[in-house]
Amino acid sequence: MNADRNARALLGYLAEPGDPILGALLGMYEAAEVLTMIKTGMLPSVPSGTAREMLSRALDRWRQRMPGLPPEQDLAGNACRQGIRLICPGDPEWPARLDDLDQARPYALWLRGSGDLQFGSGRSVSMVGSRAASGYGVHVAGEMAADLAERGWLIVSGGAYGIDAAAHRGVLLTGGTTIAVLACGVDRPYPAGHDGLFAGIADGGLVISEWPPGSRPTRYRFLVRNRVIAALTMGTVVVEAGRYSGALNTARHAAELARPLMAVPGPVTSVQSEGCHVIIRDWGGTLIRGASDVIDLLAPIGEPAREDLDPDTMRVLDAFPARSGVGTSTLARTTDANIDVVLRSLGRLAATGYIERCAEGWRRTRNGTLSP
Amino acid sequence: MNADRNARALLGYLAEPGDPILGALLGMYEAAEVLTMIKTGMLPSVPSGTAREMLSRALDRWRQRMPGLPPEQDLAGNACRQGIRLICPGDPEWPARLDDLDQARPYALWLRGSGDLQFGSGRSVSMVGSRAASGYGVHVAGEMAADLAERGWLIVSGGAYGIDAAAHRGVLLTGGTTIAVLACGVDRPYPAGHDGLFAGIADGGLVISEWPPGSRPTRYRFLVRNRVIAALTMGTVVVEAGRYSGALNTARHAAELARPLMAVPGPVTSVQSEGCHVIIRDWGGTLIRGASDVIDLLAPIGEPAREDLDPDTMRVLDAFPARSGVGTSTLARTTDANIDVVLRSLGRLAATGYIERCAEGWRRTRNGTLSP
Repeated sequence: MNADRNARALLGYLAEPGDPILGALLGMYEAAEVLTMIKTGMLPSVPSGTAREMLSRALDRWRQRMPGLPPEQDLAGNACRQGIRLICPGDPEWPARLDDLDQARPYALWLRGSGDLQFGSGRSVSMVGSRAASGYGVHVAGEMAADLAERGWLIVSGGAYGIDAAAHRGVLLTGGTTIAVLACGVDRPYPAGHDGLFAGIADGGLVISEWPPGSRPTRYRFLVRNRVIAALTMGTVVVEAGRYSGALNTARHAAELARPLMAVPGPVTSVQSEGCHVIIRDWGGTLIRGASDVIDLLAPIGEPAREDLDPDTMRVLDAFPARSGVGTSTLARTTDANIDVVLRSLGRLAATGYIERCAEGWRRTRNGTLSP
Repeated sequence: MNADRNARALLGYLAEPGDPILGALLGMYEAAEVLTMIKTGMLPSVPSGTAREMLSRALDRWRQRMPGLPPEQDLAGNACRQGIRLICPGDPEWPARLDDLDQARPYALWLRGSGDLQFGSGRSVSMVGSRAASGYGVHVAGEMAADLAERGWLIVSGGAYGIDAAAHRGVLLTGGTTIAVLACGVDRPYPAGHDGLFAGIADGGLVISEWPPGSRPTRYRFLVRNRVIAALTMGTVVVEAGRYSGALNTARHAAELARPLMAVPGPVTSVQSEGCHVIIRDWGGTLIRGASDVIDLLAPIGEPAREDLDPDTMRVLDAFPARSGVGTSTLARTTDANIDVVLRSLGRLAATGYIERCAEGWRRTRNGTLSP
């Protein structure tokens, strides 16, 4: 297992995340086996001549990048010492939604911050838009993100200037958690002008990336990254986007993944709203006026069956008073459970909408109260 | 026939336009017969007791308004001397679209202005919205109306402050024609502050009403009037509308008449766009960014089959040069037709999109050129 994790970490240095050939190989072989193919140049049996040639060339390309890599045994460990951790498909924290990407699924993810990705991506929505946002767009993104965070929703965005930053900041102002998905190493987040913002995001939330520490962003990497933003959440809201904005690329990924696609309208005289109007008019996107519209659309999809809860989580839920709030330590006492188990259960219950934050700690939501 | 016209004119004084009982009676009897029923109190044979009682009460109510009316023989004639003319169902100028209103069809219409209602309502769109419009709404309405007028479309609106006025003015600035549908007599158009605007509209276009000359507007009459705005045109665009704007009532009429319903989005922070967003989100309305979006939606619906043209009109169309423009008198000479016939044919051809205005007078549109 550790060999597989290390292999996945190494692969991110050798091949670009989102590489379709590597994605296909990882769909058929263990990561360590793929790494051996790269090292040895030993080809698996591939039927067609052309496919065999493409594969051979790809293995050569990746092998050429091997010299100068950090010692492979230490990759995850080194990162960990910098406060960065690696998660791989199959890990408890790996978000199942990413598996919808099939062969385009990330090989692995590098995480910085104290949030839990599995918890965080439960009731969640991506909020994206133009870097060159208008005052209107920044205002709407900030308000909507704050409203959603206060109602227990997690906001995922790309950490860029403009709409992304407004969304992240709106969440942070409410004391909520948010996730920034980067197109570069989480140790050198881009843009540098957002260093403070990324620190704020990592404190309670997460800054994540498919690219290993040290990677620089490129134009192409932003586009590849966008599929992860779309896949991580229940749906994507474009707050403002010009006709050629990268946010439309994220929106298209959301649509391809059959995630609800949403857009905020704006003045038809504003070029920054042109992309949003295309989404609503021509792509079947839903017009969004604020947080309530997002919740109306997404909440019914996310409603979990109580039977899907694991026994620990169900026990914690049953320990909740019907109406008042309760603190974590009280729950640990009443359920006689380890505090870590209680925290994980609380995360799951919040992520699936059974409970929400309150002054005393946590309380049942209306949904959590009505559940049988 | 004249008796019928006079009867219809009189009925507008006795009953409120849009009265469902009078509408039902006019669906079964000639207007003159209905007038006789009112005068004599003689009931037609009605099966049910309740219906008979309602009908009797309605006839009584209408009869009580008979004293003090102008001499019935003179109604249309008097109006005509003030530059106001009466048109009735079946008249050449009566717009066939109004017949879609069934029993809610106007008894008659009073017209002021030099436009032709049959011509005018061919390629046409209603543009409505809030009185308390924002600068944004006024700007968009004016631009869109002007663009549509320049491309040969007729704009119908309600003559009110705000969006209505902006739409009418946008058309007039291009030298185009527009129609204002009022909820009061066309001799005392409301609001009085728009007297100059109404004079401008009547000069080339039309100011029309179901209410006879001298009638004052009421809150109720505006709502009744809205169905005529919706019925007269191929579709309705709401440019700006608060959540309780009368424009939403017009929009609802358009939807009930199965006319395409359109709305211009705006900032979600603007109460003046709330109604538009409801139309797009919840009523299935199409998001409109400008004139081109309106034409894209409506033009395919309005495309007439050449076989629908009458022989005179077809002869005038055939007399058009393939590419260059042509004047009215030239057409009269080449077709050897009366100038009135040519003018009427030109109106029909423009209304159905075969020809458009140009420096020389008229020229074929691309549609008119391609037609077999």
